[in-house]
Amino acid sequence: MIITLLSDFGLRDPFVGIMKGVILSRAPGVRLVDLTHEIPPQDIRAGGLALRQAVPYFPRGTIHLAVVDPGVGSARRILAAQAHEQFFVAPDNGLLSPILAGDPQTRAVSAERPDLCLPGTCGTFHGRDILAPLAAALAGGQTLEELGPAVGDWATFALPAPQVTLGEVRGEISFSDRFGNLTTNIEPRHLEQARLRPGQAAVHLGGVFLAGISTHYAAVATGQAVALFNSSGALEIAVRNGNAAAALNQRAGDLVTVTRLGQ
Amino acid sequence: MIITLLSDFGLRDPFVGIMKGVILSRAPGVRLVDLTHEIPPQDIRAGGLALRQAVPYFPRGTIHLAVVDPGVGSARRILAAQAHEQFFVAPDNGLLSPILAGDPQTRAVSAERPDLCLPGTCGTFHGRDILAPLAAALAGGQTLEELGPAVGDWATFALPAPQVTLGEVRGEISFSDRFGNLTTNIEPRHLEQARLRPGQAAVHLGGVFLAGISTHYAAVATGQAVALFNSSGALEIAVRNGNAAAALNQRAGDLVTVTRLGQ
Amino acid sequence: MIITLLSDFGLRDPFVGIMKGVILSRAPGVRLVDLTHEIPPQDIRAGGLALRQAVPYFPRGTIHLAVVDPGVGSARRILAAQAHEQFFVAPDNGLLSPILAGDPQTRAVSAERPDLCLPGTCGTFHGRDILAPLAAALAGGQTLEELGPAVGDWATFALPAPQVTLGEVRGEISFSDRFGNLTTNIEPRHLEQARLRPGQAAVHLGGVFLAGISTHYAAVATGQAVALFNSSGALEIAVRNGNAAAALNQRAGDLVTVTRLGQ
Repeated sequence: MIITLLSDFGLRDPFVGIMKGVILSRAPGVRLVDLTHEIPPQDIRAGGLALRQAVPYFPRGTIHLAVVDPGVGSARRILAAQAHEQFFVAPDNGLLSPILAGDPQTRAVSAERPDLCLPGTCGTFHGRDILAPLAAALAGGQTLEELGPAVGDWATFALPAPQVTLGEVRGEISFSDRFGNLTTNIEPRHLEQARLRPGQAAVHLGGVFLAGISTHYAAVATGQAVALFNSSGALEIAVRNGNAAAALNQRAGDLVTVTRLGQ
Repeated sequence: MIITLLSDFGLRDPFVGIMKGVILSRAPGVRLVDLTHEIPPQDIRAGGLALRQAVPYFPRGTIHLAVVDPGVGSARRILAAQAHEQFFVAPDNGLLSPILAGDPQTRAVSAERPDLCLPGTCGTFHGRDILAPLAAALAGGQTLEELGPAVGDWATFALPAPQVTLGEVRGEISFSDRFGNLTTNIEPRHLEQARLRPGQAAVHLGGVFLAGISTHYAAVATGQAVALFNSSGALEIAVRNGNAAAALNQRAGDLVTVTRLGQ
Repeated sequence: MIITLLSDFGLRDPFVGIMKGVILSRAPGVRLVDLTHEIPPQDIRAGGLALRQAVPYFPRGTIHLAVVDPGVGSARRILAAQAHEQFFVAPDNGLLSPILAGDPQTRAVSAERPDLCLPGTCGTFHGRDILAPLAAALAGGQTLEELGPAVGDWATFALPAPQVTLGEVRGEISFSDRFGNLTTNIEPRHLEQARLRPGQAAVHLGGVFLAGISTHYAAVATGQAVALFNSSGALEIAVRNGNAAAALNQRAGDLVTVTRLGQ
C-alpha cells in the first residue's frame, strides 16, 4: 500500500516528517512517497495541477494525501474520494478538483470522524491531526463510506481554457518548471478545433514566434527555442539546454497564441 | 523499525543518501524517514527544537539520528540515549538536550564502539562513519549498554525563558517557519502565572498589538494578523493567508510581550 | 532490493515522485533512496561526481537510476551497466563515466527494450518513460544481457587532473558543498608524486596560503581556514564553523597549488 504526500509545507520545517510519523504510527506497513512539498505557499491551483500530473503514474489503490490549505481551521470540509481507482484525502477547497474532474466514476465523502483525529490537538495543523489519520485509516482498509456521508459536489477552481477560433488558439502559460520550461494550457485538441496542424503552426509569445511544433527537444540546436507537446500532453516552450522562462522573459499567466505559419 | 534522520546537510550534496546507504547496508529492514535536512548550517539550537517538535508523533521504539555538528572531528562525545520510549544518536553538543529534558526516565551512554565504525574512514564525516552505524546497531537489537558506558549528564544549551510578572509576560520569537508564522517561547502556563486570560490578552510585537489570543487562524479576515496557541502549544503570531514575518518585519530573538487588554 | 535516484529535477515539480510511481507500479517491493535531485540543471559533471561519491556506501546489488540529460529526445543511447557489484541505468552522455571507470570488471549494454517503455509516451521525459522501467526490470531479475547488446565503450567527460612536478601540485577546486567547503581534484597520490609531505605542505589559493594539511577540522580555531584530505580522499579547504567559499571568495575551477612549506 502506497501513501503519497503533496503539500506546500516545504522541507525546512519538520512538518512533513511529523505527518509521516503519524501515518506510520497507525499504518506501519505503508510505503510513503513524496510528490512535492514545494508547492508555493497556499497556491491551491499549483497543487491541484501537480497532483493531476502525478497521479496517473501510481498503481491502483494508491492513497494520495494533499494539503495546501489557506483555510485551515475554518469550516471547510475535509474530502475523502475515490477516482481513477485511487484514493484521495484533502481539504475541500478545490485542490482535488482537477484530478477528480477526469473520472466520471468519482465518489467523494465529507470525512467526519473526529474519533480518528490525533487526541488533544488544537486544530491548527490539519495535515497532521486529521488528514494523516484519515490516510492511515484508508490504508487500514476502512471504506469511504465509513469515513463520512457521500457528497455530490466539492469546491473547484476555474482553470482558464484557451480561446479557440478558426486558425487561432489563444492560451496562456500555466507554469514554469525548474528548467525554465514553459507549460501552457494548450492541448492538441485545441489545435484540431482551430484546424491547425502542429508542423505548420506558429507559436507566438513575448514578441517572438516559433515556426512549427516539434516532437522532441533535440529538434533544434543548443540555445534555440522549441515548441512541443510535452509528456503531460500540453504545449510547452523550451530552450534546448537552456532556460526558456529567463531567455524569453515569460511566466505563468502570459499570453501564448498559435496561428498558421506564414500568416 | 523506523530510523529518522535530521541534519544540516541540505539536499544538494549526496550526504543524506550516503548515510542511508550505510544504514541499509547494515540494517536492511528499517524504514527511513527524513525529519529535515535544512537546519541552518551548524545551528544546534534550531536542530534541537525541530527534533523536540517531531519526536512525539513517532511510534515507540523509533530511532532518531540527529547531526548538526560544528565540532566534528574534535573530542566531543557521541551520545546514544533513550527517552520517551524512543532512541537517539547524536553528537554530545546540546542537540539532544531539548528532547531529553522532557523525560525524567532518560538514559544515556557515551557511545564508544570503534569496531562499529566504517573501516578506513578519516573522521571528517561522523554522520556517515559513526552515527549511521550506531543507529543501525540499535535497529539490529543492540542495547544502549552495549554501545558504551552510562553518562549522567550531557551538553545543553540555554533556551531563553519568558519573564513573567503579574499581568505581563515578556518573551521572544523562537523561529519563523516557511509560511512566515512566528513561534514564540510563550506557553499557556506563562499566561496563567501572570494571571492573564487568552481572550483578554494583548500581544505586542514590532510596534503593533493584537487584541486577544484566538483559537484558530480563521478567526480573522484574510490579510489580518492573529495570535494563537499553535499545534506545538506555543504562542504564535500569523497573518491569515499571508506572511507574518514579512508583514510585521519580525524574526527570531525579537521581543513579544503579552499584557491585559485595555491597559 | 534498493533503487537509488539521482537527477537534476529538483523537488519543486512532481517529476521525482512520478518516477517513483512508475517504479513502484512495476517493482512494488523495492526500497527507494534519493541521492540528490539538486544537481545543477544539465550539469553532467556534477552528477557524475556525486554518483561516484555515493555509490561505495550502498550494498551489493543496489540499482542506481541517474538522469541529468541535456540531450533528452536525441539519439544518444541509454546505458545499463554493472560495476562495483552494483547496477546503473542512465543516458549515455558521460554521467556514468566516473563511477564505471573505477572498476575494470565493468560491463555495459545499450538498453534497447521499447517493449518495457511506458505506453503512449512522447519521449520528452526519459527518466519516467525509459529509465524507471529499466530500473524496475533489473529489480525484477532481468539481466543486463536481456536489456540490450553489450557495448565496449561509452561517453566520458574529461576530469581535469592536477599537474604534478617535483615539489609542486597544481590542481583546482572541483566543487563547493552546502557548508562552503571547497573540494579539490588533488589526492594524496599527487603529493607523493611531487615528493610533498602533508604536514610540511603549503596550500595556496585566492592569494592566501595554509601551512600544513591537517587530519581533522578541529585542528584549527573557530573561524580559521584548514586544509585536509576529506572523507572522499580529496584535498579540501574548509573554515572551521564557517564558510570557506565565501570567506576566501573561491569556487569551482579556481586554482589550488600545493608546494613545500617555507619555499
